[in-house]
Amino acid sequence: MDNKKRIYLDHAATSPLLDESMEEMVLSFENDYGNPSSIHVPGKAAARSLNDYRGRIKECIELLMNHEVIESALSRRRNKECSWEVTFTSGGTEANVTAFWGILSARKPGRIVTTSIEHPSVLECGSLVKRIGGELVLVPVEKSGRIDPARLLREVDGSTVMVSMMSVNNETGIIQPVAEVSRILKAKFPRVVLHTDAVQALGNIPLEGILKSADLVSLSAHKIGGPKGCGALLRKRGVSIKPLICGGGQEDGVRSGTENVPAIGGFAKAVEIVSSTFQARYSHMVELREFLHELVCRGAEDAGVEIKVNEVAGHQSPHILSVSVLGIPSEPLTRALSLRGVDVSHGSACHSRKQRHSHVLRSMGLRPNWGTVRFSLSHSVSMEDVKSAAAAWVGCVEELKL
Amino acid sequence: MDNKKRIYLDHAATSPLLDESMEEMVLSFENDYGNPSSIHVPGKAAARSLNDYRGRIKECIELLMNHEVIESALSRRRNKECSWEVTFTSGGTEANVTAFWGILSARKPGRIVTTSIEHPSVLECGSLVKRIGGELVLVPVEKSGRIDPARLLREVDGSTVMVSMMSVNNETGIIQPVAEVSRILKAKFPRVVLHTDAVQALGNIPLEGILKSADLVSLSAHKIGGPKGCGALLRKRGVSIKPLICGGGQEDGVRSGTENVPAIGGFAKAVEIVSSTFQARYSHMVELREFLHELVCRGAEDAGVEIKVNEVAGHQSPHILSVSVLGIPSEPLTRALSLRGVDVSHGSACHSRKQRHSHVLRSMGLRPNWGTVRFSLSHSVSMEDVKSAAAAWVGCVEELKL
Repeated sequence: MDNKKRIYLDHAATSPLLDESMEEMVLSFENDYGNPSSIHVPGKAAARSLNDYRGRIKECIELLMNHEVIESALSRRRNKECSWEVTFTSGGTEANVTAFWGILSARKPGRIVTTSIEHPSVLECGSLVKRIGGELVLVPVEKSGRIDPARLLREVDGSTVMVSMMSVNNETGIIQPVAEVSRILKAKFPRVVLHTDAVQALGNIPLEGILKSADLVSLSAHKIGGPKGCGALLRKRGVSIKPLICGGGQEDGVRSGTENVPAIGGFAKAVEIVSSTFQARYSHMVELREFLHELVCRGAEDAGVEIKVNEVAGHQSPHILSVSVLGIPSEPLTRALSLRGVDVSHGSACHSRKQRHSHVLRSMGLRPNWGTVRFSLSHSVSMEDVKSAAAAWVGCVEELKL
Repeated sequence: MDNKKRIYLDHAATSPLLDESMEEMVLSFENDYGNPSSIHVPGKAAARSLNDYRGRIKECIELLMNHEVIESALSRRRNKECSWEVTFTSGGTEANVTAFWGILSARKPGRIVTTSIEHPSVLECGSLVKRIGGELVLVPVEKSGRIDPARLLREVDGSTVMVSMMSVNNETGIIQPVAEVSRILKAKFPRVVLHTDAVQALGNIPLEGILKSADLVSLSAHKIGGPKGCGALLRKRGVSIKPLICGGGQEDGVRSGTENVPAIGGFAKAVEIVSSTFQARYSHMVELREFLHELVCRGAEDAGVEIKVNEVAGHQSPHILSVSVLGIPSEPLTRALSLRGVDVSHGSACHSRKQRHSHVLRSMGLRPNWGTVRFSLSHSVSMEDVKSAAAAWVGCVEELKL
C-alpha cells in the first residue's frame, strides 16, 4: 500500500509535519540563516525572528490559560505581560530532564515525588536525581488509570522540592488531576514546585486548569504537527532553574547552544494552529473517538472476543483510544494492522521496540494476556479513516484469535 | 542592502543551509514522518532512514580518518566495520556537555583537564562537573595561541578521567596539538579518555590525526551547512558513557528523545559534501585566506594602522582569519562592516552579545585596546567576495580611526 494512502493513527507517537509549519521553516531557513547571538544584520534578523516566535507561543499560552475565544484574541495581538518564560529545548524529553536537573540544582537537593505512569524521560531520571543527591519517589496509579491526589500527596514531605505528574497519559489518554494536586499541594507546601509533562495535552484537551496550576510545563513540537527536535519548558515567572546544557548562555542562561530558529518557527506555527482552532479540533476528535469506540465495541462483539477500553469517562483526552483484547498479543496485532495499511501503536512508541508489557497498563492491573493497541488521532483524521481502521482492526482480531 | 547580496563571512558562527541538505530534509519530512521507535510501516521507514544516515556519516568519518581518496571510495560503499559509534545530539554544545557528564558518570568522578581557550560549553561545565564530584582544571594557552602539550600533561594525574581540548579554536582558527597530546597521554595514562571539540575542524582541516588520536569527538551540523539543532558525539568503539538526556533509550541508550530524522538527514548530506569535496574546498579556502590576509595587511599599511593577525603559521585552519587593530574597538568595527553589507564576527558568536573581551585573545596576551574581527570562510565564498570584504574593512578602519 502506498504511504500516501495509509491511515495513520499514531499521532501520539509523532504527527506528520503540518504544511504551514513546513512553510514557516523554509521561510526561516531562508531569512534566519544568521546566528541569533551575532550582532551583524543577519544575526539580528535571526534574533528578531526568534523573539517573534517566542512571543507568538507566549501569546497562545496566555490565551489557552485564560480560556478566551482564541480566534479573535490572537488577531488582536495584545501586549499583555506573559506570566510564562519559554525556554526552547530539543524536545519533550530534554524539557523533562531539564526540569528535574534544573530544580534540583537551583534548590537544595531533596525528594521529587512523581507517578508510576510517567513518560520514560521522567522515570529514567532516577539515577540522575540520585547522582546529585536527590531521591525520586514513584506513586502507583489507581486501577482506574488515574492518580489519587491524596495518595500522591502523602509522599510529599518537608524535604520535597518538586512534584511531577503528566497531564495526559501517553498510552491511555487519561487526564490526570493536575489542578487538584496543585490545590492541595500549594496549600500545604507552597514552595514545592509542580511540574507537568503536558506533551500529550497540548492541542488535545483544554489547558486552562493545567496552566493555572503548574509551575513548569514540558511541551513537544512534533506531537502537534511541528518538527521533531524541538520542544519547550514553560516556567512560571519567578521559578528559577539551573541549566542542564550549559555554555554560551543562550535562552536567558537556561539552555545553551545555537538556537534552532527554523524549527522553533515550525513549532510556533503549530502552536498557533492548535490554539486558534482548538474548539473545532477538539469537537472533531471527540466525534472521531466516539465513533471508533462504538465500532470497535461492536466489532469485538461480532468477532466474539473480550475487550477492555482503557479509559476513564469524564477524564479522557479525545486523541487516544486504548483497547485491550483478551488472548491476542499486542505486537502481532499492531504489525497485522500495519500490513493492512493502518498504523497504530502498542503501548507508546517511546519503548515499543523493547517489547515489554506496558508499565502503564500493568500499573492499572492489566495482565499480560491482554494485548493492547493505542489508536491516536488528530484533527486531520476523517470519519472514513476511523471506519476503515475499525474494520481493519476487526479483521486482524478475527485472524489472530484463531 | 538586500540580504541576498550581502557578503557573509561568519561561517564559523553558522553557515547557511546547503541546498542539498534542504532537499534531503524535505524528502525526509515527507518519507520519515513516523517515529523510528514504532514498529509499523512508517515507523520502520523512519528507522531505516535513520540507520542509513548514520551509516553514511560513519562511512565519511572512516574515510576522513584513513585519508583515502574520498570521492572514489564513497562511491564504493564499503561495508567495513566502523571504529566509531555516532550518537546524534541537538548540536555541538550538547555533544560537549554529554561527553563531560557521560564520562564522569560512567567512571569514578575525577579530574578533567582542559584548556582556557575552549568553547563556553566546555568552560561552563565546571559547575556540572563539580556537582557530580569531579574537578575541571583549565590549562592556559601559550602566547602563540596554541596549547603546550607538556604543560597540559603536567596537570594529568592518577585521578584524571578525561582530557578535553578543541581541535581548532573557534576565534583564531589555530589548530591545536591533539595528536601530540594523545601520543604522550596514552603512553602514560592509557585509560584517560581524550575528548576533542572538532566543531570547527570538520570540513575545514584534514581530520586524520584528530580521528586517530581522540576517543570522543563533538561535531555540529550547522557549521558545515547542515541544519541548526543537530550534532553528534562520536565515540571510539569500546568507550562507554552514561546518558545526560535519559528516557526512552534511543541512540543505543546514550541519548533519549525521538530522533530528529530530517535534521539528521540534512546533517548526513552536509557531512558527505564536505568529505567528498574536501581537497577542493580546502585548497579554495587556503587561497581565499591568503588573498584576504594580503589585502588586509596592505590595507592596514595604507590606512596607517597597526594590526596583528592572530595565527600560527603551519597550524592554521584556512576558514578563519582573525585580525586585531590597535585602538579600534571590535564591536563598532563589526557593526560598521555589517552596515556595508559584510558580516563578520568579533570574537565568536557564542558570547558576542556579552560584549566582553574575548577570553581566547586575552589568554594569548592581547590587550583590550586591540579590537578584533574574525572573518570566517566557506567553500561558497568567492575571491571577489574577499576583495570586497577587505575593501569594506579598510573603509571602516579609516572611518573609525579618526
